[in-house]
Amino acid sequence: MPSYTAPTKDMQFILHDVLRITEAGIAGYADLDRDFTAAILEEAGKISTELLAPLNPVGDREGCRLENGIVYTPTGFKDAFEQMKENGWPAIDMPEEYGGQGMPYIMNTAVGEMFSAANQAFTMYQGLTHGAASAILAHGTDAQKQTWLPKMVSCEWTGTMNLTEPHCGTDLGLMRTRAEPQGDGSYRITGQKIFISAGEHDMAENIVHLVLARIPGGPEGIKGVSLFIVPKFLVNEDGSLGARNGVSCGKIEEKMGIHGNATCVMNYDAAEGYLLGEAHKGMRAMFTMMNEARLGVGMQGLAQAEIAFQNALAYAKDRLQGRDITGARNPEGPADPLIVHPDIRRNLMEQKSFTEGARAFLFWGATLIDRAHREGDAEADGLVSLLTPVIKGFLTDKGFDMTVQAQQVYGGHGYIEEWGMSQYARDARIAMIYEGANGVQALDLVGRKLAQDGGRHVMAFFEHVKTFSKENAGTEGMAEFLEPLKRASKDLQGAAMYFMQEGMKNPNAALAGSYDFMHLFGHVCLGLMWARMARASLAALASGTADPAFHQTKLATARFYMARQLPMTATHLARIQSGAEPVMALEAANF
Amino acid sequence: MPSYTAPTKDMQFILHDVLRITEAGIAGYADLDRDFTAAILEEAGKISTELLAPLNPVGDREGCRLENGIVYTPTGFKDAFEQMKENGWPAIDMPEEYGGQGMPYIMNTAVGEMFSAANQAFTMYQGLTHGAASAILAHGTDAQKQTWLPKMVSCEWTGTMNLTEPHCGTDLGLMRTRAEPQGDGSYRITGQKIFISAGEHDMAENIVHLVLARIPGGPEGIKGVSLFIVPKFLVNEDGSLGARNGVSCGKIEEKMGIHGNATCVMNYDAAEGYLLGEAHKGMRAMFTMMNEARLGVGMQGLAQAEIAFQNALAYAKDRLQGRDITGARNPEGPADPLIVHPDIRRNLMEQKSFTEGARAFLFWGATLIDRAHREGDAEADGLVSLLTPVIKGFLTDKGFDMTVQAQQVYGGHGYIEEWGMSQYARDARIAMIYEGANGVQALDLVGRKLAQDGGRHVMAFFEHVKTFSKENAGTEGMAEFLEPLKRASKDLQGAAMYFMQEGMKNPNAALAGSYDFMHLFGHVCLGLMWARMARASLAALASGTADPAFHQTKLATARFYMARQLPMTATHLARIQSGAEPVMALEAANF
Repeated sequence: MPSYTAPTKDMQFILHDVLRITEAGIAGYADLDRDFTAAILEEAGKISTELLAPLNPVGDREGCRLENGIVYTPTGFKDAFEQMKENGWPAIDMPEEYGGQGMPYIMNTAVGEMFSAANQAFTMYQGLTHGAASAILAHGTDAQKQTWLPKMVSCEWTGTMNLTEPHCGTDLGLMRTRAEPQGDGSYRITGQKIFISAGEHDMAENIVHLVLARIPGGPEGIKGVSLFIVPKFLVNEDGSLGARNGVSCGKIEEKMGIHGNATCVMNYDAAEGYLLGEAHKGMRAMFTMMNEARLGVGMQGLAQAEIAFQNALAYAKDRLQGRDITGARNPEGPADPLIVHPDIRRNLMEQKSFTEGARAFLFWGATLIDRAHREGDAEADGLVSLLTPVIKGFLTDKGFDMTVQAQQVYGGHGYIEEWGMSQYARDARIAMIYEGANGVQALDLVGRKLAQDGGRHVMAFFEHVKTFSKENAGTEGMAEFLEPLKRASKDLQGAAMYFMQEGMKNPNAALAGSYDFMHLFGHVCLGLMWARMARASLAALASGTADPAFHQTKLATARFYMARQLPMTATHLARIQSGAEPVMALEAANF
Repeated sequence: MPSYTAPTKDMQFILHDVLRITEAGIAGYADLDRDFTAAILEEAGKISTELLAPLNPVGDREGCRLENGIVYTPTGFKDAFEQMKENGWPAIDMPEEYGGQGMPYIMNTAVGEMFSAANQAFTMYQGLTHGAASAILAHGTDAQKQTWLPKMVSCEWTGTMNLTEPHCGTDLGLMRTRAEPQGDGSYRITGQKIFISAGEHDMAENIVHLVLARIPGGPEGIKGVSLFIVPKFLVNEDGSLGARNGVSCGKIEEKMGIHGNATCVMNYDAAEGYLLGEAHKGMRAMFTMMNEARLGVGMQGLAQAEIAFQNALAYAKDRLQGRDITGARNPEGPADPLIVHPDIRRNLMEQKSFTEGARAFLFWGATLIDRAHREGDAEADGLVSLLTPVIKGFLTDKGFDMTVQAQQVYGGHGYIEEWGMSQYARDARIAMIYEGANGVQALDLVGRKLAQDGGRHVMAFFEHVKTFSKENAGTEGMAEFLEPLKRASKDLQGAAMYFMQEGMKNPNAALAGSYDFMHLFGHVCLGLMWARMARASLAALASGTADPAFHQTKLATARFYMARQLPMTATHLARIQSGAEPVMALEAANF
């Protein structure tokens, strides 16, 4: 019953009118003209709507099942995976030498939002493969790249990331899985990993696990952790598959959502593995992928909000209930559609202004990653490192909230699984947890990123806002967007200032406000995005666009965000400035 | 794995130190001394912990099943229901003449929170029976009361409420179910009702449905709706059960949560029914129960937040992960417990300050209902009518948020069903929807209650805050609680003033801010409750209490609420004062 329509028009607006990607001066971007991106987005949209979205409730209903060590994915997943592979979607931004299409990451992000919106559980199989392949690409030897990448880029073999153990999630220093060197350069890996997405399934002939483990004799804690490639089947010299390795799925978890993705307990029993990158530098190898992986999870928050919003909007236009208080809008019918009611609109406008603002923010982040990777731009790398926890934490928190609000539009039907709205909320929920729970994102932001390189990156962000404001101060129609943005940005500066002053004396004064800071920062970023979108739409209207309604709608939505969402920054600031005491006052025993 | 401990100590504090119930001058309250309420609460707590809580995950896992028209409840529910009946719990506040215990509603609320926290799906069977019995008590003829009440009070027969139809939920004027008079005083009811909680099940020998239907020839719309008693089995003159009536369960819904409660599609096929109250005045009959029913749903929001908080707190004390940034707290262990981390504390303090504040608010509401019903106090009735949508809307929204936050403390384990945290969130979600979706509560508050009786009730509320502030202005230690309360109350007055001024010109100006107003009001109420609790704890400390830690903890939690939650009122006011335009600007087609 629920449906998905790819937001290609909005994506095109962001890529070309707001971010002006062809003029961005990033390698490969000049090729991304309107026609080219339109063709890609439309094709990805088609496969999302027609192939992936119909399988989304199937995956939710059936889930995965483990029988005799084999994990069976839901009906239709295997065929769909074949089609995705045939069309080369899983690796459009992978290097051509390994079979990818060599496009910039921004395009992977745009199509990824569609795939994820249409079917998050399904899309994770290829998303995790992409992450694992990126790690091998960044840290593997030439031989390792030759062995693993071509098959992973094509998704004939899929990949996984193995970090968590039963007793350690965030605190990976507690890790127990060990890797015994065998003298021939290989290792024997033994231990148990949990929460391994796509850890075992029936859609690929081999699975390449990247596993964090400890080499005996290495340093204690997090500094003694190394990263290993551990395949399900060993690979012979000629590239053919050899013996089954000592790795198996012990259990699949019953979860709140993403039922179509197998979340596995993985048991390693002296499994053969190969060191990836340097010994004891496993965390460094993980961290190089972290920005991209976390951006990908932020995207999931947006994606579920988008599909939930689309369906809530359709329902609000269709369902007749009550009358417009200012006069019937559907006098011939028994009642007016839900959308006439101010509180339904308030709800829908919150969803709309979030998803469109978040998309611009995410795409901007993706261009920064491309600039960092393709141009070696350290400033862009620093800025996106700063923004990554905001994208991950804010977009997944708000994305989940929006799925809950979308569900609310349906009334009682929103609670019935048959109508599909519950799944969006249940699937979106995981994105707040994995790839670093959002509290850890806030800690990363305030405890590490804010002061990184002497605070240069946050200063660069403020400078960016200031420059944008100055450049557009004289533009007719911009004042109503620039004023609230400036106020919000000032709140963010006030919070950063508070942390600098008080955090010196007491680190808890900063950390007790970290979560509020992450959300405050998120609002300022979305405020900035809405100001940038407003400017683009004002320019389009001034130049006589053929589609004035689209741009007038953008302006109205920008106004909503400024009036109704941005005031939240003041409350976040007040909370932050109340300091550590209210939060830390109680002894644990007195809670 | 999850557990529940009844918060009897906190309940006793609210009943006796804060609300001082024995001195309240309400009929029946003088009997409610500390020892008496302690005995009741401990007994209810015991049955909640030992009987109901262990069945909660069973109900979630198994759900209900429909076979050949019979609905089977989950394993253990039937036995537990027998025990609840034997102990007289379902009707402790029902009149003694029908087999109840005649206690005030406040006691039903207190034990109801426990039952609901321990097992919401189970407790709904008796909760709905209570609601249906209350309607018969209020509107039935003596003969009807004699026929139905004794069996319903004992829960030998359970009850249901049948309002919703597939095409109409909130807008009951669209209702199609019809009731044909038979000439002998009875009616034949035909139509379909959906979302009927406890509509069919195997735990009672008869089910008494209260059904809204239309008598042909009556007024159009909502004014032509009447309420009927429609039993599953007809009842003979001698009180024995007769023929099966023309009502059956056509389907049970697959839902996001409360799986242990059967949500039924009920088909009425010329079923025999009896008019309850006056013809065409069915809505009035429904509305007299509405305050109580909505308070009961608000209670569910609190209850799920409470059990989720208890388990999150236990996990935060137990799970070792990372180190306190100011120095190790568990130097002998591999890591410190989660609770040392400021953001975990921020999260836990939000939960704690919500649940305790919400409990005080709910209990205060229950005393107002008792004062209205037992003393015929019109002022109390007006005030609780005003506060009811706030209790329902704010407590269920925030209650759900808190279950989500509690789930977050568990990290990845929070998403795994086995750990139990997902169920609290999934179960809590429904309370935002049923008994009037929260947007409808906001509409009721702003569109009806605020201006009711010339705005007298909201003025009474403000007067109440003012009097409390004045009376305690000189109390040492109260200033830090009174100042933020006054500021928040001023924001609420500002919002009410805005609605009065702008709503005259454009009703959308008020309705577009209704949801924010409901939350603004909720924060002020919890702020008031925290100020009242602070005063009670200051008094206890001044008089040399034997438990200073309890009262110091109350003060610290009050400070947290004032510093970290109450500032939210400013943002709600800013949103409200931005008016209708940002919300209503778009044409529906342009969304």
